[in-house]
Amino acid sequence: MVAFGSGERKAVYSAIYARRDIRRFRDEPVPEAVLERVLDAAHHAPSVGFSQPWDFVVIEDDGTKAAVAGIAERAIAAAHEGYREPRKAAFGALKLEGITDAPVNICVTCDPTRDAPHVLGRNTMQEMDVYSTCLAVQNLWLAARAEGVGVGWVSFLYPHELRNVLEIPHHIRPVAYLCVGYPEDGFPDEPVLQQEGWRDRLDRDELVHDGRWEPAKTPDGDTRSERETDS
Amino acid sequence: MVAFGSGERKAVYSAIYARRDIRRFRDEPVPEAVLERVLDAAHHAPSVGFSQPWDFVVIEDDGTKAAVAGIAERAIAAAHEGYREPRKAAFGALKLEGITDAPVNICVTCDPTRDAPHVLGRNTMQEMDVYSTCLAVQNLWLAARAEGVGVGWVSFLYPHELRNVLEIPHHIRPVAYLCVGYPEDGFPDEPVLQQEGWRDRLDRDELVHDGRWEPAKTPDGDTRSERETDS
Repeated sequence: MVAFGSGERKAVYSAIYARRDIRRFRDEPVPEAVLERVLDAAHHAPSVGFSQPWDFVVIEDDGTKAAVAGIAERAIAAAHEGYREPRKAAFGALKLEGITDAPVNICVTCDPTRDAPHVLGRNTMQEMDVYSTCLAVQNLWLAARAEGVGVGWVSFLYPHELRNVLEIPHHIRPVAYLCVGYPEDGFPDEPVLQQEGWRDRLDRDELVHDGRWEPAKTPDGDTRSERETDS
Repeated sequence: MVAFGSGERKAVYSAIYARRDIRRFRDEPVPEAVLERVLDAAHHAPSVGFSQPWDFVVIEDDGTKAAVAGIAERAIAAAHEGYREPRKAAFGALKLEGITDAPVNICVTCDPTRDAPHVLGRNTMQEMDVYSTCLAVQNLWLAARAEGVGVGWVSFLYPHELRNVLEIPHHIRPVAYLCVGYPEDGFPDEPVLQQEGWRDRLDRDELVHDGRWEPAKTPDGDTRSERETDS
């Protein structure tokens, strides 16, 4: 059984805290061995009933990337139209994807029919297959960070169009479209959206509820951690 | 910028590979400081538009755990009825949750209204909020593993009943119900469902597709990695 000393524990937290959503990539290939390691890390995520519902479409072809970037461009333009100023201008100034810059793109999909009809644990929560697929994405993301490789998740896509470009069967759900490569400017200390003033990190204490949803605050409005400090 | 040496990189992969779904817990509390660290790790997951849509209901009260365990018991009994033999007997022999054994339970929820209506990146994929919440779960799970703390995700629950027990507002979606504590028998080398003969791990090469969905196999039926070995 693997035991973690303080150095190993610290390394795991480092990957968690130093991981970033990367949108600018250097023109430098990701070695095949590194790619295999991060994909294998993804494949070792937990999954409902051990169903392992994920697949990985690995894209290195420029034509395919350009086709996907075309979808993203329209989705971003559409989103842009929906904003009011000053958010609209701020949104327009953001670089939101690095599809054609990244040497590798990975589309992570979910197969809802895998191990069906009786996937252990999907009985009352059918969407557990998609949840499992997301856990695989986070494994991939953290492994990549430890490898010095950046990952950016592009959700400005029309899933049906993406499915067509990648010839993904109709019953398979594209969950994540990831741009993968070495970051152009390294890994920023803070999330880019925080740096750009888009949104701040929330206070963790306000998101942690003690026992039930409401008792997170006392009648005075004190948070849980404040109470603990007081008592 | 944090750089990972080979030791740190190895530690990250160790957490990924040695993480397990734990269902048997020792009667030993999880120190508050450890709990705060794993919750903070969860809170540092990536999220769509940096929306941080998660909340964490931390349950240590026996009465609440018993109420949730009662929901799980019925959900498991219902699933059991659906199986045919010999799967039915095999299912019945599995221990599927450790709700009342675990010193701590954590319900991770998703708030679809957080930062709404214009969450950057949810425009064409509304479910990105739930995906983000799952990424937080995996951060928590890996941090816990590095702390020697086991986590088991219980999906045999009726979400609406869970919401009632925890007094979670109607618009908030319970995503994960996690049992958290020190594992009774340590961390098994393989997933329990694999050890019990329920299901094997799939071959990773069959899940990795080269460029598009179909070209993963050549006309001869060779997989991508076989072709690479051959060439």
